[in-house]
Amino acid sequence: MVHAPLRPPPGAPPVRINLYSDTQTRPSAAMKDAMMSAPVGDEQHGDDPTVNALCDRMAALMGKEAAIFLPSGTMCNVIAILTHCQKGDEVVAHESSHILTSEGGTHAALTGVQIMGLPGARGMFNADQLREAIRPKTRYAPPQRLLEVEQTANIGGGCVWPIEQLNAVAQIAHEQGWATHMDGARLMNACVAAGISAAEMTASYDSVWLDFTKGLGAPLGAVLCGSSEFIGQAWRWKQRLGGSMRQAGICAAACDYALTHNIERLAEDHANAKALARGLSQIPGVVVQEPDTNLIFFDIKETGMSLDAFQTAMRAEGVMISGLGGRVRACTHLDVTAAQIEEALTIIRGVLAKG
Amino acid sequence: MVHAPLRPPPGAPPVRINLYSDTQTRPSAAMKDAMMSAPVGDEQHGDDPTVNALCDRMAALMGKEAAIFLPSGTMCNVIAILTHCQKGDEVVAHESSHILTSEGGTHAALTGVQIMGLPGARGMFNADQLREAIRPKTRYAPPQRLLEVEQTANIGGGCVWPIEQLNAVAQIAHEQGWATHMDGARLMNACVAAGISAAEMTASYDSVWLDFTKGLGAPLGAVLCGSSEFIGQAWRWKQRLGGSMRQAGICAAACDYALTHNIERLAEDHANAKALARGLSQIPGVVVQEPDTNLIFFDIKETGMSLDAFQTAMRAEGVMISGLGGRVRACTHLDVTAAQIEEALTIIRGVLAKG
Amino acid sequence: MVHAPLRPPPGAPPVRINLYSDTQTRPSAAMKDAMMSAPVGDEQHGDDPTVNALCDRMAALMGKEAAIFLPSGTMCNVIAILTHCQKGDEVVAHESSHILTSEGGTHAALTGVQIMGLPGARGMFNADQLREAIRPKTRYAPPQRLLEVEQTANIGGGCVWPIEQLNAVAQIAHEQGWATHMDGARLMNACVAAGISAAEMTASYDSVWLDFTKGLGAPLGAVLCGSSEFIGQAWRWKQRLGGSMRQAGICAAACDYALTHNIERLAEDHANAKALARGLSQIPGVVVQEPDTNLIFFDIKETGMSLDAFQTAMRAEGVMISGLGGRVRACTHLDVTAAQIEEALTIIRGVLAKG
Amino acid sequence: MVHAPLRPPPGAPPVRINLYSDTQTRPSAAMKDAMMSAPVGDEQHGDDPTVNALCDRMAALMGKEAAIFLPSGTMCNVIAILTHCQKGDEVVAHESSHILTSEGGTHAALTGVQIMGLPGARGMFNADQLREAIRPKTRYAPPQRLLEVEQTANIGGGCVWPIEQLNAVAQIAHEQGWATHMDGARLMNACVAAGISAAEMTASYDSVWLDFTKGLGAPLGAVLCGSSEFIGQAWRWKQRLGGSMRQAGICAAACDYALTHNIERLAEDHANAKALARGLSQIPGVVVQEPDTNLIFFDIKETGMSLDAFQTAMRAEGVMISGLGGRVRACTHLDVTAAQIEEALTIIRGVLAKG
Repeated sequence: MVHAPLRPPPGAPPVRINLYSDTQTRPSAAMKDAMMSAPVGDEQHGDDPTVNALCDRMAALMGKEAAIFLPSGTMCNVIAILTHCQKGDEVVAHESSHILTSEGGTHAALTGVQIMGLPGARGMFNADQLREAIRPKTRYAPPQRLLEVEQTANIGGGCVWPIEQLNAVAQIAHEQGWATHMDGARLMNACVAAGISAAEMTASYDSVWLDFTKGLGAPLGAVLCGSSEFIGQAWRWKQRLGGSMRQAGICAAACDYALTHNIERLAEDHANAKALARGLSQIPGVVVQEPDTNLIFFDIKETGMSLDAFQTAMRAEGVMISGLGGRVRACTHLDVTAAQIEEALTIIRGVLAKG
Repeated sequence: MVHAPLRPPPGAPPVRINLYSDTQTRPSAAMKDAMMSAPVGDEQHGDDPTVNALCDRMAALMGKEAAIFLPSGTMCNVIAILTHCQKGDEVVAHESSHILTSEGGTHAALTGVQIMGLPGARGMFNADQLREAIRPKTRYAPPQRLLEVEQTANIGGGCVWPIEQLNAVAQIAHEQGWATHMDGARLMNACVAAGISAAEMTASYDSVWLDFTKGLGAPLGAVLCGSSEFIGQAWRWKQRLGGSMRQAGICAAACDYALTHNIERLAEDHANAKALARGLSQIPGVVVQEPDTNLIFFDIKETGMSLDAFQTAMRAEGVMISGLGGRVRACTHLDVTAAQIEEALTIIRGVLAKG
Repeated sequence: MVHAPLRPPPGAPPVRINLYSDTQTRPSAAMKDAMMSAPVGDEQHGDDPTVNALCDRMAALMGKEAAIFLPSGTMCNVIAILTHCQKGDEVVAHESSHILTSEGGTHAALTGVQIMGLPGARGMFNADQLREAIRPKTRYAPPQRLLEVEQTANIGGGCVWPIEQLNAVAQIAHEQGWATHMDGARLMNACVAAGISAAEMTASYDSVWLDFTKGLGAPLGAVLCGSSEFIGQAWRWKQRLGGSMRQAGICAAACDYALTHNIERLAEDHANAKALARGLSQIPGVVVQEPDTNLIFFDIKETGMSLDAFQTAMRAEGVMISGLGGRVRACTHLDVTAAQIEEALTIIRGVLAKG
Repeated sequence: MVHAPLRPPPGAPPVRINLYSDTQTRPSAAMKDAMMSAPVGDEQHGDDPTVNALCDRMAALMGKEAAIFLPSGTMCNVIAILTHCQKGDEVVAHESSHILTSEGGTHAALTGVQIMGLPGARGMFNADQLREAIRPKTRYAPPQRLLEVEQTANIGGGCVWPIEQLNAVAQIAHEQGWATHMDGARLMNACVAAGISAAEMTASYDSVWLDFTKGLGAPLGAVLCGSSEFIGQAWRWKQRLGGSMRQAGICAAACDYALTHNIERLAEDHANAKALARGLSQIPGVVVQEPDTNLIFFDIKETGMSLDAFQTAMRAEGVMISGLGGRVRACTHLDVTAAQIEEALTIIRGVLAKG
């Protein structure tokens, strides 16, 4: 059924290699130690010291004035749009963006904005495409107010927007009087892959958030950054959405730990992704997109095997892998080793060979 | 200024030939006589006999169970979507559709739906394109609930959806459990051009509306048709939006007059449109789209004259004409004669010659 | 059924005396003449001269900078609140106000505001009651943004807010940084009854609207007035709600006629109301509220007759009368003469006597 | 400033006795042990075993079919109302209810419902008051759809609705075709005080939620219970609001621990509350409301000291205490001992004596 909780099928084998998503990483023992020893307070009254410290650290990292701790990345997008826009405004984003495809229609339901979805290869669009999307400023056209980009572009293939392109589209937006927002769910992957600091990568964006539950390995939490005024207004929406918590420092401590220990190591995930892609490219009938970061998309249509059958067969071998937009999506992260990548390749070859 | 009322520039010359829009037609003396002699009552209590008679007539014409009188076509779209959908649902429509481009973002602001804009030549898409737009039924994807088409497709060029294509896309929608809605602002132009009755043209659509202020020449009013249950619910939204009026029979009488007298004559407008297109196609540098109905779109980029300059020069000659999406849009209607078309062509040739 | 159009019961006798509502007045022959001879244009492009002239006249009458023509009073309230407030704001109004009780929940559904309903006799509250309603300015309390009053207070008994009280509550609102809005559906009744000009009566209010379909006798239309900036923004909402019309000057002409001919005569309606109240007060078991203007509320509980039975019996005698909040509501207007008041009293006495 | 995070004043003394709120309890060492050893999974995919076990346990405890884990109690109310109601519906609740006074206007902003606030002593209303609030079923009145009660009634004084009264108002609601929802933020306090099981206490309510961050002492989390269909729909809103988390089992483990260890001990908090109230009642000028549970409201107006001055003076003595609706509110919980109550009384006497 559509709406029911997606509990795993009863007799499913244990998952040995989890290529499904970097969201499924488990907190390590060291991370848990950090959680248990963190001082806590009443987060929604602003006096949880661990949450406050995380927000200060994140604001500095992103080069923004202020930051706010939230239970999820989706809430970061919802609150950013609620704060930048008024109802009836239009947001311009890629047609494959998370806000359009993967947030259940929340921006229509709750934030009251229209999202114009731009086409473009690899989840990105360029300055010319953006210029064509500018509407006339009349009473008939929806008033455009916000540019949104996703760094890395998930459905595009985990691709990294080049910083020149990020700045070029942001400049057009600002010339039009729009604000700019970056969905940075996997921003640190982009920064590590490009060798560019987060502050530089996000300098043209008025707001940006980072998810700690993906490659960074924390159990929950995301932090949205922006100007002091923006974050002040975001607090009202956090309260309204029910995103204000209590002794949330326990969770913020895991995020703080991740910032210290789990960023540089994203390079390993990227190397593993490239190794997986290389191996896949040698399998007949598999068409693989060269990965920029930790997401590997590949097409198995030519092998004659369906996506569903492939996923089921892999699961039966103890490998969890996902499908997105008609392609297989594999994801590397801190719970996947280089050896597991080799093992996964062997299993994939076997599964596709059997058909 | 963007929001201000668009009163005409003070020293503007009188408009002799109005190709700007069929919305600008003035009620004729005979139409006014019908208005003045119509019995009226309290429309929002359901006892205005002229409004009730118009609704009954329209329901029969469209082959639907019931109908509701509203002050504008935009309100028909707003109410239809509010009635078919719940907030957070997704509507699938053409990317150039009136609901996406020309209703000020009202569906995000007020109805709470997301609209997916499909590409496609001449304002239309086909069954294959629609099938590709079907989202997976998960908690992440916005739930799709409604197919919307525009007959004729205004920005597409006043094009007429072939009835087989209308039925094919509606069938896919119904298979998916979606409702279907037709924006029939200029539906009667399509029916006259195709020689197909309104009831047949709209048979696959759960709701449809007709605007009386375009080629039909009434001063205000549109009628939305659908099942009895649909119209019952639409009444609550009419009340909430402030679309309930009082002795509205005065206006409904003009619509009733238009149904009787102004439909068959749309063929004249179409003939005038074809004559205009023929003339335009002989002007060097003018690229004209063959008109299906009463809208003629042409491109003057190759003449080197800008759209703004062209419109201004035409207005100085007493001809009002509009621009839409980078092209000139001319519109024929009951206040434009065949002779005026010839005169307009002469003026256009002169204006473009001078540059 | 709840949602269905409220068409009159088939065998109902013709209504000879209509005390039901001043909304049911029919346009007079002279008013129709004015409608037919009015110059018209494309109202939503701002070039209908009759609509523009009405707006200019209304702005001057109310002492505001600008005005906008709308199809109904409900739309005036919806647009005023959409323009003054952002979603999540709170409006403070009387608990019996039209926006809370009689607009179908539109402000929750569409405008996104919460309305705090204050108690108070005769549809009014005073400065002390308003001061108590001020919420703390925290993230937990809804941000208060607008004071709304209804002049005259319909369900309160058609009562006239004393101008000192209007100004006192508005002053508190402005001190709090709130805007002020007056629902002036029957404002001219208040002005005539109090002998105070509309401009003076509304001087403390940032926006005000007047309905032309009540005692003023026009078939449809209402005009909302405020600052130029406010009206500029209101235009965007008019477009979004579907309140933009075409050759609406035909209807605006009726409103203009009403301003000229139907205001001073409201005094007759008030005299008729007082005569009706006097007569009712002499009927045993009838408790009548002294009318300020053209609405007369009376309680028949002590007579033992139910409200429904009374209305049905009156309708059988050709008199239409309404019930509201457990009391009978009679309404005088330009289609009710002094002689009809006497006749109505005779019928009421007879109906109640029979029980 | 209104919107800014409420970080504590820099030089504030450490808080020795925290009577401010039961939301400020810190997780105990034993609770943390339970958190660290809990198995976790991807909560938003439905495969976090600790979250699933907590939901199953809560559904059983409340006698409902299903349950859903959420980051806060406010989100429980938002999602319950979004699921029970459609936009434009009306909810009937007490005028002091949390949803009206303390959720920042979220129900207008996001859920699109109007809330009718009923008066009534101690945060409760009775069957007669509810019957009077029933609106006529017309197109003008907002459609009423949901009864909401708060058990215990916070601003009412932490009062316990008698179960007969709970059932009586729910019966009226169901007769009207409305759903019923219980804000059970402090439900277990009511159950312990009344000696009635949660399942019996909530039997007449279609949905109910419990907050784990108040007297139960967990750092974050609340669980909403209802029918399987209701919870299925709630999941979609959880996703849209950004309430879906990842390895949330770490937090759910604390809630599970609280269910096992921290419910019966609420009786101690109630005994401490009564002791505090007894002591307060003997201080001249203090008017104290007899507590039902763990909230003690008292009025110090007659002492001549302002609420602000009192709170500041208490804070300077190391006691944190809150104000709500013009009265002082003290709260007992698992971080407040009987000895601290005596000490707090001594400090209060001293502070009030100095004035």
